[in-house]
Amino acid sequence: MGYHRLFEIDEWKIRTNQLNKEHKRLQESLTSIGNGYMGMRGNFEEDYSGDHHQGIYIAGVWFPDKTRVGWWKNGYPEYFGKVINTVNFLKTNIYINGEKVDLYVDQIHDFDLELNMKTGVLYRNFTVEKQGNRYRIQVERFVSLDVKELCAVKLSVTSLDAEADVKIVSALDGNVRNEDANYDEMFWLPIQSESRSLVVETKPNPFGIEQFSVAVTMENTPIGLTKQFDHMTDLEVSESFSRTIGKGETVALEKRIIVTTSRDYERQEVLPAAKKILDEIGKFRYDELKETHENRWKNRWEMADVTIGGDPSNQQGIRFNIFQLFSTYYGEDKRLNIGPKGFTGEKYGGATYWDTEAFVFPFYLATADPIVAKNLLEYRYEQLPQAYENARKLGLQGALYPMVTFNGVECHNEWEITFEEIHRNGAIAYAIYNFTNYTGDRSYLEEKGIDVLVGISRFWADRVHYNKEKQVYMIHGVTGPNEYENNVNNNWYTNYIAAWTLKYTLQTLKEIPERKRLLLNVTAEEQNKWQHIIDRMYYPYDKKRDIYVQHDTFLDKDLKTVNELTPDDLPLNQKWSWDKILRSCFIKQADVLQGMYFFGDQFTLEEKRRHFEFYEPMTVHESSLSPSVHTILAAELRKVDKAVELYERTARLDLDNYNNDSEDGLHITSMTGGWLAIVQGFAGMRTFNDRLSFAPIIPKKWSDYSFHVNYRGRLLFVQVKRDETSITLVKGEPINLEIYGKTVEIRDVYKCRTDFDQ
Amino acid sequence: MGYHRLFEIDEWKIRTNQLNKEHKRLQESLTSIGNGYMGMRGNFEEDYSGDHHQGIYIAGVWFPDKTRVGWWKNGYPEYFGKVINTVNFLKTNIYINGEKVDLYVDQIHDFDLELNMKTGVLYRNFTVEKQGNRYRIQVERFVSLDVKELCAVKLSVTSLDAEADVKIVSALDGNVRNEDANYDEMFWLPIQSESRSLVVETKPNPFGIEQFSVAVTMENTPIGLTKQFDHMTDLEVSESFSRTIGKGETVALEKRIIVTTSRDYERQEVLPAAKKILDEIGKFRYDELKETHENRWKNRWEMADVTIGGDPSNQQGIRFNIFQLFSTYYGEDKRLNIGPKGFTGEKYGGATYWDTEAFVFPFYLATADPIVAKNLLEYRYEQLPQAYENARKLGLQGALYPMVTFNGVECHNEWEITFEEIHRNGAIAYAIYNFTNYTGDRSYLEEKGIDVLVGISRFWADRVHYNKEKQVYMIHGVTGPNEYENNVNNNWYTNYIAAWTLKYTLQTLKEIPERKRLLLNVTAEEQNKWQHIIDRMYYPYDKKRDIYVQHDTFLDKDLKTVNELTPDDLPLNQKWSWDKILRSCFIKQADVLQGMYFFGDQFTLEEKRRHFEFYEPMTVHESSLSPSVHTILAAELRKVDKAVELYERTARLDLDNYNNDSEDGLHITSMTGGWLAIVQGFAGMRTFNDRLSFAPIIPKKWSDYSFHVNYRGRLLFVQVKRDETSITLVKGEPINLEIYGKTVEIRDVYKCRTDFDQ
Repeated sequence: MGYHRLFEIDEWKIRTNQLNKEHKRLQESLTSIGNGYMGMRGNFEEDYSGDHHQGIYIAGVWFPDKTRVGWWKNGYPEYFGKVINTVNFLKTNIYINGEKVDLYVDQIHDFDLELNMKTGVLYRNFTVEKQGNRYRIQVERFVSLDVKELCAVKLSVTSLDAEADVKIVSALDGNVRNEDANYDEMFWLPIQSESRSLVVETKPNPFGIEQFSVAVTMENTPIGLTKQFDHMTDLEVSESFSRTIGKGETVALEKRIIVTTSRDYERQEVLPAAKKILDEIGKFRYDELKETHENRWKNRWEMADVTIGGDPSNQQGIRFNIFQLFSTYYGEDKRLNIGPKGFTGEKYGGATYWDTEAFVFPFYLATADPIVAKNLLEYRYEQLPQAYENARKLGLQGALYPMVTFNGVECHNEWEITFEEIHRNGAIAYAIYNFTNYTGDRSYLEEKGIDVLVGISRFWADRVHYNKEKQVYMIHGVTGPNEYENNVNNNWYTNYIAAWTLKYTLQTLKEIPERKRLLLNVTAEEQNKWQHIIDRMYYPYDKKRDIYVQHDTFLDKDLKTVNELTPDDLPLNQKWSWDKILRSCFIKQADVLQGMYFFGDQFTLEEKRRHFEFYEPMTVHESSLSPSVHTILAAELRKVDKAVELYERTARLDLDNYNNDSEDGLHITSMTGGWLAIVQGFAGMRTFNDRLSFAPIIPKKWSDYSFHVNYRGRLLFVQVKRDETSITLVKGEPINLEIYGKTVEIRDVYKCRTDFDQ
Repeated sequence: MGYHRLFEIDEWKIRTNQLNKEHKRLQESLTSIGNGYMGMRGNFEEDYSGDHHQGIYIAGVWFPDKTRVGWWKNGYPEYFGKVINTVNFLKTNIYINGEKVDLYVDQIHDFDLELNMKTGVLYRNFTVEKQGNRYRIQVERFVSLDVKELCAVKLSVTSLDAEADVKIVSALDGNVRNEDANYDEMFWLPIQSESRSLVVETKPNPFGIEQFSVAVTMENTPIGLTKQFDHMTDLEVSESFSRTIGKGETVALEKRIIVTTSRDYERQEVLPAAKKILDEIGKFRYDELKETHENRWKNRWEMADVTIGGDPSNQQGIRFNIFQLFSTYYGEDKRLNIGPKGFTGEKYGGATYWDTEAFVFPFYLATADPIVAKNLLEYRYEQLPQAYENARKLGLQGALYPMVTFNGVECHNEWEITFEEIHRNGAIAYAIYNFTNYTGDRSYLEEKGIDVLVGISRFWADRVHYNKEKQVYMIHGVTGPNEYENNVNNNWYTNYIAAWTLKYTLQTLKEIPERKRLLLNVTAEEQNKWQHIIDRMYYPYDKKRDIYVQHDTFLDKDLKTVNELTPDDLPLNQKWSWDKILRSCFIKQADVLQGMYFFGDQFTLEEKRRHFEFYEPMTVHESSLSPSVHTILAAELRKVDKAVELYERTARLDLDNYNNDSEDGLHITSMTGGWLAIVQGFAGMRTFNDRLSFAPIIPKKWSDYSFHVNYRGRLLFVQVKRDETSITLVKGEPINLEIYGKTVEIRDVYKCRTDFDQ
């Protein structure tokens, strides 16, 4: 397992005094910031000539790149959508006596890089030596939570030793490429360039996907500097400032960048709109803009902060996860979703995966206003027509939500995933249940959710086949959550969630208003067939072990445990050929256990224990989505050491670069793992059947931990100390909940002994 | 099913009076010629501005093109080898009064295109109208069987109506590309161009694959024309001739092209060698060269011709197949193998597939000198080290022969094929058995074959796993011959041929000289394990139906028959998405039946009948390799109508473009299907256990059929008439064989009643 820690342990900061040139990409990933509308890797403002990955991304601005496969299979999507690297508007170069500052080659001292997670501001200070003299340079930037289109940079240069000519060139550079472009193509066309503004547009494509226009305009406020000249080409505009300064003297530049797109404005209005916004914020000083931004972060933390006492590294980990999740998505725009890398990289195309519903959804349900989670549901509702089309392309009825998408149209192209990892459809249905059950608000379910449920149910009903000999329904040819097995038959998880979807849909159909039911037009015949499938669904089961079997022939494998592997074998996905992985028993990611987590109320503790003890030892957790589910179950089973071990794999996944791939970007959708492990794992929060409950335990090395949850209009503060657990009603009406199985009313503060052994 | 017949029915010719512009590519494929060393599609000598596919290929000259996949999987090969389009040396343009002849735009009359299969000469005659006057143009060409480096073209122009300036420009054009290049790259670099000669070399590559040099030199002999000038660029050289001719007058050009490569000569010797060969054949007239070539074809036909009485279309079909097979490969160079498209196209990379051993091998065994088949075995023997390396890359012991290769290194890149279609290894072993058993010559087996067998056995012994619970050996995660199922467990065919290989290897180890046995160093422990696997191999079996099951869960499928499909469903590979194909019961290609064909002596007729009747109705035969095996079994089971129906799908596959893809090139390796169907099918020839036997039947529409077979030093002529079957000993010692189960001695001619009902 990889392990590489670039930054110091600090409860609120991501901070280092090292410029790590060898791991520059990783450093960039870990200092990413964003505001849901746009974001960027921790690139330097000034040019850096060493290896790094320049990346600024705007949510929902993408390009359909022609599908590239070795062997075409019927049904593959025509394009793979890619989040695209947009105009580098940070670009600001500093020249000292005509020499460019470039930290890759320059001698530097007192380097300090700091991302303040509490306030969402990135700081960088360093002393650079040029021709034997020293210059102190300080840079800070933020992407505003208050004005989404705004990114602001402040940069100052102080001469420490001698007089010097300082020149600062502030640019907007449209000459950017994606590293993952098929043919190293540019995705952008120049549209307009003028003094301090640039408009670019994505290239035309043959797939009928809209071309996105992006306007970027800037205002540079020099402090102690004199404007020199403007420079303009098709794809780059810049403004230069300079001044000869004496020893001890400081000059500075404040740069405000406004980014607007054709997602929000008519094409011809994109640039005027940007200018208007720039004009409107003209009345605020830089510090005022920054303060408003910082206050918004403060408000977010008030609802969502998790504290861990006595374990600063895990404290930092959980805050980093929450910070990056909120930087990626905070539900403001329901056309958006949560890309696996957020604004921190290009890999996986930056689109929507089932991760959202399965792993991220519960986090937003508890830490933000219900509208945030609801917008994630609306996103899928809006894409229901495309889901019907995806199923049609596979020759199936109903709706199949895509494995990867920007617009609802499938754009993934591995047959064993694209065509077969259909359990994703179940997670979409489950999120509807989860929202309704958590919030108690049935309006989404009854108005829109039921449409989605019916579409998904129709898909399942057509995708099963009836085995006449055994008189059961089967689902052949699927890939379950454990992607280390492909094209298996009767994956227990898939069969279970398919039948569950049918059941939930049938039940909901009975409950919705007659008018809606008529519109949906689910015939009696259809409903009978669904019931028949529910009643006769086949679940692979092993009598001897009394367990559900992951899929039909899983037990025929050479069954081993992870501790029989050698370090040379791990990670399997880098050491073993694919066929060896597939025929081994090793599990990438919770599969049967994933089902027992989702449907925790439908299995006894004893059942969970048997399955955990059978499957956990075979699980290599090579998906970053895996450990949290195991932590939750381990905590429930009071296997505290196991729970802690697994928690630690998820909580600092990126900060410690466990998977040795964080240089490509952060594992954004896995970042809820730490939160889930604490809240649903250690604190044992459950919400099944309209009932909130907790059953906290506390890891040995922690003195205490605490978090807030929103639940049905209440804000609750849960604090677990070694000897005492308290639940405080911070906001809202008194509420009944269960703690350690006992029903209590929370009016103000409720306290009880923290019970390790239950 | 596609069906498109471009050429007339003619027993010895591929002939048409139509220039079919819409199907030019198909016309080109069907008029391909070659001599094993090089070959070409039926392109016109003069430029043709319409859609067509220019293709001239040299055996063993290839380029490793970077692997292109959507999602990289550990173990994928770095490159995909491609047969490459080489210098267009046919290029010869005709100008009439300065206007180029271009059949795509010109008015033409009396067009006649004819490939004479008896002689291997391609003819083309037509009258072209230019500025209101008519010109008769006649072209012929052949690729010499006598001088492998020689291609000769003869071209004449007669003015029919008026005086005209005729110019002929004969060129060597190195500016060629592969249509299947990843990035439309050129694979060639110019090395040398001089008067009438061009040397090119394949681009450097990062995979350590040799760069091939190709020299082409030409001699143009004008008849009635005057030399004008030479023209040279880096990648093209040409020589011009012209003359003003009167009405009725004819001018002509004879063009001899010599092609040599760095496969046969040192790089600096390639061009001198070509010139030397050109010089050496200078003593022969064009007609003499042509006659020698034609005689070689005559000799081939004497040993291999198949006649079919009363069915000219099938007569044409079988001769076309034999002609194209011999044009592709006749065993002269044991570094070569038989590409699926031969010299007729680029698809599939033109490399070596298991098709050779499984389908093509028996044809050469019977129709050519044993050295031809032996050279196919030597090819694999030479690549044994690479086969060990292929297995090692998958983390396995022993030798795994590649799915696709030029040099023994795997270069295919679909995981379900590359990593899992391992039954190919069994076919390599089977061919060794087949050769030894057919020829009675054990020398190859004992000197080299056993090395290959041991390598393959070691692979199987490592690839199985022991299921402790069921106490059997299993092979998980394979793709069988039926590629419409992927990643299945215990494919019966694979398990069977794996166990058979172990058995055959163990037996052979006992029989070889002690000295060789010591060298091979197969330990007693190894041999015991092999025996253990043989004894405890698991074969999926269904008691109720008393059949072997294709793989573990096949019977859980929704079992249907092909006649339940609608025309909209077919071909499945174009109409259904891949997952739907995989979970359906429909079989692309004989699977269990393939095993019962290979090991026909190990199953009773009754067993074959049960399996045929179960699997045949589910087989869609969407591999061109499939129908022949079914024909053979159907004939053995005396299901004559079925046998004929399936025969017809294979015999004229390309001539009637059944699979609607012959425009990409011919299905060379499938072309033995027709021959196998007649000889092993209708005539019932078997050679198991050192014993030759026949049991002929004759399809209703045929008056008679006949063929020659070589068997252990004898040339036998078998003729089957409706009422009488005769076997004539053409050459060699008298021999005992079985006919309809009765042992007879063939000294001269043996005759008996043709028995329909047995």
